[in-house]
Amino acid sequence: MNIKIEKLVKQFAKLPRVGTRAATRMVIGLLQDKTGRAESLANTLLDAAKSIHPCSVCGVLTDADMCEYCCDTSRRNGQLCVVRDFSDVLVLEKSGVFHGCYHVLGGSLSGVDGITPDDLNIANIAKRIETENITEIIFALPNTVEGKTTQQYIISTIANPNVSFSELASGVPLGGDLDYIDDGTLTLAFGGRKRI
Amino acid sequence: MNIKIEKLVKQFAKLPRVGTRAATRMVIGLLQDKTGRAESLANTLLDAAKSIHPCSVCGVLTDADMCEYCCDTSRRNGQLCVVRDFSDVLVLEKSGVFHGCYHVLGGSLSGVDGITPDDLNIANIAKRIETENITEIIFALPNTVEGKTTQQYIISTIANPNVSFSELASGVPLGGDLDYIDDGTLTLAFGGRKRI
Repeated sequence: MNIKIEKLVKQFAKLPRVGTRAATRMVIGLLQDKTGRAESLANTLLDAAKSIHPCSVCGVLTDADMCEYCCDTSRRNGQLCVVRDFSDVLVLEKSGVFHGCYHVLGGSLSGVDGITPDDLNIANIAKRIETENITEIIFALPNTVEGKTTQQYIISTIANPNVSFSELASGVPLGGDLDYIDDGTLTLAFGGRKRI
Repeated sequence: MNIKIEKLVKQFAKLPRVGTRAATRMVIGLLQDKTGRAESLANTLLDAAKSIHPCSVCGVLTDADMCEYCCDTSRRNGQLCVVRDFSDVLVLEKSGVFHGCYHVLGGSLSGVDGITPDDLNIANIAKRIETENITEIIFALPNTVEGKTTQQYIISTIANPNVSFSELASGVPLGGDLDYIDDGTLTLAFGGRKRI
């Protein structure tokens, strides 16, 4: 394969959940296109890479100084939803389940990957509690050891007695057949069973 | 979602076999990366889009005037393998099954999609037969109605009696269990059965 094409394939193959085969297909698709889709994509990406950055308050990707969620005063309801990534914000927004402000950590604490509190957008939370009169912090972090560790760490850093903490319920998903549910989820679902 | 991010997602979602969800993941992955992966990818893509073009002889993507296969004199064995796309060349090269020159059509004839012989790199084949002393044309086109139509059309345009034509065998794939083979393939495999 031509060395320039190979270089491009390698860079596409680093995208999340893209392997060499899919990357090759993408690159050939782009380079064979006669309508200039490759240049257009490259220019849009360059433009976005230059202007998109995390919101200075919450970490949501934006091209303004403050993101659309932080600017929206109707979201100042005292609730702050802590998520790992910007993609989690999009998922929550799509579901329409939450209408408040977000806080994007940018990752989870992980001893294995060497991610410490300093690498994450954690220090800012305490400040936001004061300035935005936050009364409830809702953790919507992944239901994993890393997610729970990060959650515990954040709770330990906040000494404000007016703030309550909550986390998403864990259990059997909607439409979930017990046959297909793993033991860990079943244990959580049993432990968290509700009186009816 | 920010409008610049949305525009980028839409362009990524046009890549082959990429949906909006995967495109969103890719775009967020690129824009969140702090090592400049987005700029780097955009610049590599721009560079490739400017310099990569189809080989003037065979249609393989290259940044030179003539591609590596056409330049390689050890491939001048009188065989010409006709394929639909550049990606098919990569698949054949990886398998090591063929060591000759290629001819990339850039598509298949299709009444439905309005693709006529003028849209494809077909006229060049007759010229190549003369200049490169081609004696066998091997069709490695998709085993579909469009592929077979294209193949028949190309054969009809070539009046040279010294050229023989062949196509890839069709039948049961290696390791193929008859349970999982479709009726069309079974019919072809029966029709093409070999004496042992």
